[in-house]
Amino acid sequence: MIAKTLAIPYYAVVFTATRTDMDAGYEEMVQKMTDLAQKQDGFLGIESSTNNKLEISVSYWSSIEAIKKWKDQTDHEAAQKLGRKEWYKSFKVRISQVVRDYEFTN
Amino acid sequence: MIAKTLAIPYYAVVFTATRTDMDAGYEEMVQKMTDLAQKQDGFLGIESSTNNKLEISVSYWSSIEAIKKWKDQTDHEAAQKLGRKEWYKSFKVRISQVVRDYEFTN
Repeated sequence: MIAKTLAIPYYAVVFTATRTDMDAGYEEMVQKMTDLAQKQDGFLGIESSTNNKLEISVSYWSSIEAIKKWKDQTDHEAAQKLGRKEWYKSFKVRISQVVRDYEFTN
Repeated sequence: MIAKTLAIPYYAVVFTATRTDMDAGYEEMVQKMTDLAQKQDGFLGIESSTNNKLEISVSYWSSIEAIKKWKDQTDHEAAQKLGRKEWYKSFKVRISQVVRDYEFTN
């Protein structure tokens, strides 16, 4: 559930979105894109949580170049287009460099 | 819902957690800490989403120093201690510098 990322530095893409009422095809597309992301060079992991108000998905990558390649990946581009047209009311994408991390396990 | 952060550079703290079965006092504490964070110098916004598997909370700050001060804030320290003892099975904190952001509104 919590992504097992490697030592810093690595990169995080924080995607936060509010959804429209249109659900057709959405879950399938999320699954398809998650599967596809995992096959990309430089993909390190993904964490997602959705409630009825806000969707947050954080993906982790080894470099900015890997993030750019994923953004421009053909099937992913088509999915982004559909997302803007059908599924998302609004979203924000923040690309960031992780400079420190720590964890706790009980 | 989506935090209205200012121009880059700014900083994001990505907190992802799995919860224990203990719920007593949890929601109240989350609300209290969210209210308190908003009073801290350098706080820019917060986005949270929880489902039954994973909790994600991303807070945004103007500087690393502001993040450190919030981590060490007395009431917040006590809350973190309780979190480790009662509410969280595991969590990971990632502090990162936002280097690019963009948004979409329908």
